[in-house]
Amino acid sequence: MKIAVYPGSFDPCTNGHLDVITRCAKVFDQVIVAVLCNSNKSPTFSVEERMSLLKSATRDIPNVKIDCFSGLLTHYMAQKKSNIIIKGLRAVSDFEYEFQMALTNSKLNPDVETFFITTSAQNLYLSSSIVKEVARLGGSISDMVPACIEQEINDKLK
Amino acid sequence: MKIAVYPGSFDPCTNGHLDVITRCAKVFDQVIVAVLCNSNKSPTFSVEERMSLLKSATRDIPNVKIDCFSGLLTHYMAQKKSNIIIKGLRAVSDFEYEFQMALTNSKLNPDVETFFITTSAQNLYLSSSIVKEVARLGGSISDMVPACIEQEINDKLK
Amino acid sequence: MKIAVYPGSFDPCTNGHLDVITRCAKVFDQVIVAVLCNSNKSPTFSVEERMSLLKSATRDIPNVKIDCFSGLLTHYMAQKKSNIIIKGLRAVSDFEYEFQMALTNSKLNPDVETFFITTSAQNLYLSSSIVKEVARLGGSISDMVPACIEQEINDKLK
Amino acid sequence: MKIAVYPGSFDPCTNGHLDVITRCAKVFDQVIVAVLCNSNKSPTFSVEERMSLLKSATRDIPNVKIDCFSGLLTHYMAQKKSNIIIKGLRAVSDFEYEFQMALTNSKLNPDVETFFITTSAQNLYLSSSIVKEVARLGGSISDMVPACIEQEINDKLK
Amino acid sequence: MKIAVYPGSFDPCTNGHLDVITRCAKVFDQVIVAVLCNSNKSPTFSVEERMSLLKSATRDIPNVKIDCFSGLLTHYMAQKKSNIIIKGLRAVSDFEYEFQMALTNSKLNPDVETFFITTSAQNLYLSSSIVKEVARLGGSISDMVPACIEQEINDKLK
Amino acid sequence: MKIAVYPGSFDPCTNGHLDVITRCAKVFDQVIVAVLCNSNKSPTFSVEERMSLLKSATRDIPNVKIDCFSGLLTHYMAQKKSNIIIKGLRAVSDFEYEFQMALTNSKLNPDVETFFITTSAQNLYLSSSIVKEVARLGGSISDMVPACIEQEINDKLK
Repeated sequence: MKIAVYPGSFDPCTNGHLDVITRCAKVFDQVIVAVLCNSNKSPTFSVEERMSLLKSATRDIPNVKIDCFSGLLTHYMAQKKSNIIIKGLRAVSDFEYEFQMALTNSKLNPDVETFFITTSAQNLYLSSSIVKEVARLGGSISDMVPACIEQEINDKLK
Repeated sequence: MKIAVYPGSFDPCTNGHLDVITRCAKVFDQVIVAVLCNSNKSPTFSVEERMSLLKSATRDIPNVKIDCFSGLLTHYMAQKKSNIIIKGLRAVSDFEYEFQMALTNSKLNPDVETFFITTSAQNLYLSSSIVKEVARLGGSISDMVPACIEQEINDKLK
Repeated sequence: MKIAVYPGSFDPCTNGHLDVITRCAKVFDQVIVAVLCNSNKSPTFSVEERMSLLKSATRDIPNVKIDCFSGLLTHYMAQKKSNIIIKGLRAVSDFEYEFQMALTNSKLNPDVETFFITTSAQNLYLSSSIVKEVARLGGSISDMVPACIEQEINDKLK
Repeated sequence: MKIAVYPGSFDPCTNGHLDVITRCAKVFDQVIVAVLCNSNKSPTFSVEERMSLLKSATRDIPNVKIDCFSGLLTHYMAQKKSNIIIKGLRAVSDFEYEFQMALTNSKLNPDVETFFITTSAQNLYLSSSIVKEVARLGGSISDMVPACIEQEINDKLK
Repeated sequence: MKIAVYPGSFDPCTNGHLDVITRCAKVFDQVIVAVLCNSNKSPTFSVEERMSLLKSATRDIPNVKIDCFSGLLTHYMAQKKSNIIIKGLRAVSDFEYEFQMALTNSKLNPDVETFFITTSAQNLYLSSSIVKEVARLGGSISDMVPACIEQEINDKLK
Repeated sequence: MKIAVYPGSFDPCTNGHLDVITRCAKVFDQVIVAVLCNSNKSPTFSVEERMSLLKSATRDIPNVKIDCFSGLLTHYMAQKKSNIIIKGLRAVSDFEYEFQMALTNSKLNPDVETFFITTSAQNLYLSSSIVKEVARLGGSISDMVPACIEQEINDKLK
């Protein structure tokens, strides 16, 4: 069974994240969406909220599991018996940082591979920060996040 | 069974290509290395030579198959019953072109996904062009191509 | 009256070009689409064919004019009494070349300004080369070029 | 009448900003320089100080107006009856962020267009942060900001 | 005598920094590694700790001197009677920032030149931040920092 | 004695090249400008013409020598007893290619170091191709090349 892990902050998840999840779920037997619990940063949504939003947004995709992790990603991969990390790429700046992380993870565990996937064209402009900024300023985020979580995101941010 | 297709020119294959093949062969059930027969370009090595070099270089990896194709990659993917395209990424310029191709292929067949994988750090500087340039000028390519095909590449180029 | 000049090869024009033309036509009083006659290069479509395709594609936008030019763009701008060059941007590599051309044109005539406009997200992956490659290999270009010129492009390339 | 809006932090304005303003003022009937009041960030200069510096620096260009705004830029554009956003571009990293913002603004209001303009070569190295860093460390900023506001900037920062 | 200055934060120094130092020490008569004392930032290691780690890591290279500085780099260069700044480059984002700093320093003192050097392939993925993140999360940094300072870095971070 | 080699096509040399040469001549004891004789490419100016233009342009800088080479750069470096390669950087695309060449040369001879230097801001937009294109189309190249070789370049290209 091929299990892929898709790690990230998902603060909150966007149509871009959902696009990556949907496409990976067609290719791999199981996709674990792993929310990073980074005690140093102050996220807008708590880990529980972020997992809850992801669960709502992916409830119709049977082979997707929502989880969270802290510590080294390569340790988490070993626990989950997965050697496939999935990362979405949007832009050159994404690419450089993710590239550096992929080389680091490969150094820490040579059996783990990072696969990059591009988000579809209409979601290229999307990021969690832009969703939050637009929602805070009262703009519509209906094209940016799954319909079933739009209200919850707006309630938190307005 | 998860079949991944790794398309490219491989004119000739390098340690960077072999690195991508080896790592994908650990993750997917089968990896088809698909040499592009592009009638418009004039490659240094013929399709047969390129396939032969790839066969020598990958003979110890059982789940790798060497093939060639012409026409649309998405048509070839359908023939091979694969929906996973693998591409190696080295640099920003790679990224932009490959990104454009991934979006185009996704437009031509939404079921096909392109996964990008980074080559390991020590192969980052490698390209088929550099191998050919160094070999033509009499430099050593022993760190750049698999040992079993070094002689064949040197014979062709000197 | 604000006249903007949108220069390029348009070999052939794509939905990305048409998107730029449509958006500029809303902002400027007149948009001159200026096909470059570069005697050194061998385009796929002749200047006449490229102008004819552009005329078909823009026939419903009253303030667009199709023209061609050779020689220095800044000389052409002076003839047309325009000081606004429009260029579309898709990617980082576009940006660097166009940036260099904008600085050069500004050096040759400080009164001429280059304005860059991004193509909309769904056209980001589009280029004339990709349209030609897909059409030559028998793929569908119906999402890539205006419907009224799709047949003409396919006839030329197949 | 063509009204262009040039939004930004201008904390403080530099020769690069003034270069963009001067060149746009030649092309558009009116240029509104719109200082962003972002309550989340802590700027070095207050909105009033930033507007005052911009007014001093642009007092000889009759069709330039200094204003400030908060909230969504597209809402502000509608208030000002302008559909032209101007942004200066210096580098690839600028380009990616601004590109994302342009696609977002175009999503929020399809009638608003973002035009990018390059700063002239001698101002390419300039940013508000560099001006502040050099001034704080006692270096000369006389080549970096308009002469009429150099003293005011130095007084604030030393 | 050719004296080169290699300025940076070195918080803490990595194999990438040591690689740059070793290679410059072969080319220049003296290399001064200059730790930046930036009162605004809160580094993980104090200036004294960073200098001490650098001294341990470079103790076998006779023509390397460890120093610290605050204020304008060009002033420090003048004090040290050096007109050669050395900076390591890893990625495009490094390049853009360093390029801007080089043009600024050249503006502040036209006699000072900045030379960029690439780190070797196996250190490309390395940065002080990644070393700190891996060490904090309990991963091994033995391939990332000189052996003689690994313990000291781990003691500080765990 | 520190000898630096500045290799390139110089077809023809521009103010950007001259800027790099002048600045390196202040830092190194001798600068050898090494014109690449690449039998595969068809340059606009012959090796002799390119060397002659460089000699005219640098005649007032005593520690500059004009030479040409073919074959591997690292072999040439050994002949000249130099271990310092100088390359000018203008843009991100330059950076990626030059980075790849630097890693390759360092692989072929670990004692040779490549130092990158930025051209000054006013020469950033300059390349040999742009000089040739502007001259061919009848534009003025007086800000782009040293005055003493402007006529010779124009004579060749018009």
